[in-house]
Amino acid sequence: MTAAVSPLAPKSFPDMPPVAGVRLATAAAGIRYQGRTDIMLALFDPPTAVAGVFTRSKCPSAPVEWCRARIQAGRARALVVNSGNANAFTGKNGRAACAFTAKLAAHAAGCRATEVFLASTGVIGEPLKVEAFDGVMPNLVAGAQPSAYLAAAKAIMTTDTFPKLATATARLGGTSVTINGFAKGAGMIAPDMATMLAFVFTDAPIAASALQALLRAAVVDTFNAVTVDGDTSTSDTLMAFATGAAAARGAPRIARATNPRLLAFRKAFNAVLANLAEQVARDGEGARKLIEIVVEGAVSKQSARRIALSIANSPLVKTAIAGEDANWGRVVMAVGKAGEPADRDRLSIWFNGIRVAHRGERDPTYDETAVSAAMKKPEIALKVTLGLGKGRDRVLTCDLTKEYVAINGDYRS
Amino acid sequence: MTAAVSPLAPKSFPDMPPVAGVRLATAAAGIRYQGRTDIMLALFDPPTAVAGVFTRSKCPSAPVEWCRARIQAGRARALVVNSGNANAFTGKNGRAACAFTAKLAAHAAGCRATEVFLASTGVIGEPLKVEAFDGVMPNLVAGAQPSAYLAAAKAIMTTDTFPKLATATARLGGTSVTINGFAKGAGMIAPDMATMLAFVFTDAPIAASALQALLRAAVVDTFNAVTVDGDTSTSDTLMAFATGAAAARGAPRIARATNPRLLAFRKAFNAVLANLAEQVARDGEGARKLIEIVVEGAVSKQSARRIALSIANSPLVKTAIAGEDANWGRVVMAVGKAGEPADRDRLSIWFNGIRVAHRGERDPTYDETAVSAAMKKPEIALKVTLGLGKGRDRVLTCDLTKEYVAINGDYRS
Repeated sequence: MTAAVSPLAPKSFPDMPPVAGVRLATAAAGIRYQGRTDIMLALFDPPTAVAGVFTRSKCPSAPVEWCRARIQAGRARALVVNSGNANAFTGKNGRAACAFTAKLAAHAAGCRATEVFLASTGVIGEPLKVEAFDGVMPNLVAGAQPSAYLAAAKAIMTTDTFPKLATATARLGGTSVTINGFAKGAGMIAPDMATMLAFVFTDAPIAASALQALLRAAVVDTFNAVTVDGDTSTSDTLMAFATGAAAARGAPRIARATNPRLLAFRKAFNAVLANLAEQVARDGEGARKLIEIVVEGAVSKQSARRIALSIANSPLVKTAIAGEDANWGRVVMAVGKAGEPADRDRLSIWFNGIRVAHRGERDPTYDETAVSAAMKKPEIALKVTLGLGKGRDRVLTCDLTKEYVAINGDYRS
Repeated sequence: MTAAVSPLAPKSFPDMPPVAGVRLATAAAGIRYQGRTDIMLALFDPPTAVAGVFTRSKCPSAPVEWCRARIQAGRARALVVNSGNANAFTGKNGRAACAFTAKLAAHAAGCRATEVFLASTGVIGEPLKVEAFDGVMPNLVAGAQPSAYLAAAKAIMTTDTFPKLATATARLGGTSVTINGFAKGAGMIAPDMATMLAFVFTDAPIAASALQALLRAAVVDTFNAVTVDGDTSTSDTLMAFATGAAAARGAPRIARATNPRLLAFRKAFNAVLANLAEQVARDGEGARKLIEIVVEGAVSKQSARRIALSIANSPLVKTAIAGEDANWGRVVMAVGKAGEPADRDRLSIWFNGIRVAHRGERDPTYDETAVSAAMKKPEIALKVTLGLGKGRDRVLTCDLTKEYVAINGDYRS
């Protein structure tokens, strides 16, 4: 299943500093893959606060239901993630598998099962064989250490072609705090695999309710503004863990997300999420072009978002960009089908800064040679102005290539 | 641009009888293609009633705007359709091209320009060179004859691999009336080409308002229940023309769509539209499988439609079927993302009559060999039962293959 690394991958991995209060471990349990790690355990010192946002699918996976039921309590001691099997559409067995895994981790880590959070990614509909966890759990707990981020990011990959890591520091009060994160995802759902998963860790002393508010706000323009194929996973999970260890070094305890002292932290937190979300688009299945779609002049941000997603999810726009064709006629089509207010005769379209259509017609100054050269770049900025209002939004996507079809169609399960 | 004929094409073309009051002609005007016809003219004896439904795109083509402004009057004397250029996103020039073409046809046919209807299909955003029409119009009018349906259907093709024709007869009162139709379309929008176009002709004496009501009702479960790639064209046009010539043979004049004497006609009319719509799915760009998606047990028909379209437009479901993989996990994903009421634990899924998932889990009686054999067929029936209510709906689509990407991406405009 592993393909060559995406040509859009970052040139290097960031150097991930430890986050006080977080230790990580990985193991190869043979859930589906051979010769690679497929279980990741994160252990958190008490009192670590947790927040999470999950798929809006009406058919969520068992781990999503497990986490949703326990996230309100706001406390986490462990996170167990496996790749190879999504534990989705697995009925009562799926719920039992969650309970068993959490109990196992709680026993090994010395906490309660309700303080263990779970995520699974991989095949939908196959029973998850939890015996696999049984053999490795004590070793995972014993071997957990503070700087295993790269190994952790690798253990949760499915069709990803590279591990996705990001880190930032911010001043909180007078104290420097760290924000680390990693993610996986190569389609909103990948071949026979489900899921976008992302986890963020900080030593900042932020209460769970404040962390939840930060996360909900941050996700709008980061992970929710990325699409590979418009197919929403049953297992999408984004969780943030705040150990509070930086309080010992003088960082102020933050009870509310509206606290003005959070300004720098919020900025860094959003940057880590935006970085990870962009890496997901860069690793879109079969992707050869990263596409940024900016819509301006819509009647509202929400309207701009809908139009941007209509463009980003259009197979005809995505195949045109794969073919290095500045096919603005298809962009017009995608604007038109979005169902949002639009006036054809005010519409203008740019590819990588070159205006190709202006006020409802082909731009008279259109230079085919310049546009052709621009379309050969690996990163395409597509801008649409509607001329109706002040609504603006931005989403990221990738092109649609034959490799996407090959990855998702050229095999039998 | 022409590919081999779709393997899903009908084995033969229907024998199209004349419709009294309708004459057809075609010409090769070199609008974009060389060595083939690209203009189709239909002439109607007065008093022919006309009805039409058009794209819901907010950025419609100039001919769509032209027709919409004139359809209310309900009278048609001519229809001019060109392939190769959609006359969409062409600003004032586009509107002028419509007016010029209509005037030209009106002059040659001896009617008013407001009685001329227009449709264009092809490249978006290129100016339509109307001089092409100028040279051929008098010959088109002079050469129009009652049985040129196959030639007419060929003249309006773009990336279609076969012409799409259907015919039916029905009793109206004691009189037999004819319903002929033809259509084009290989994607909701095709490579650099726009459009699904379909035209239906009958000699039944049906008033324009009644014809409009019949058409609106018929489109719901025919053309509106077909998707190739979820991309809505700027130019989708479906028009029906009723010459009323059968009144001379004793057919009763119908003023209202609710007239019970329309029963047999309505059935035949719907069958012609359903036949043409299915042919569009069978000629979906790159299609190798025709997919019928039936959703039952939804809370309403509308909810069933949304879920069926979510499945039909999912690139992961479509690529799985291209790979002959009964990947019901992706069907669960598509049900879940539709946003409609669904209960994972009541969900069951069938491929070609074989139940693969039952009440939220893999079917315990699942026979992989039987399912594999079923998936090799060119026609795939995918059924989903939700177990919530009595809402049922059906949509048609096709698989997503590398050829779709090739047709739409492997070239520069």
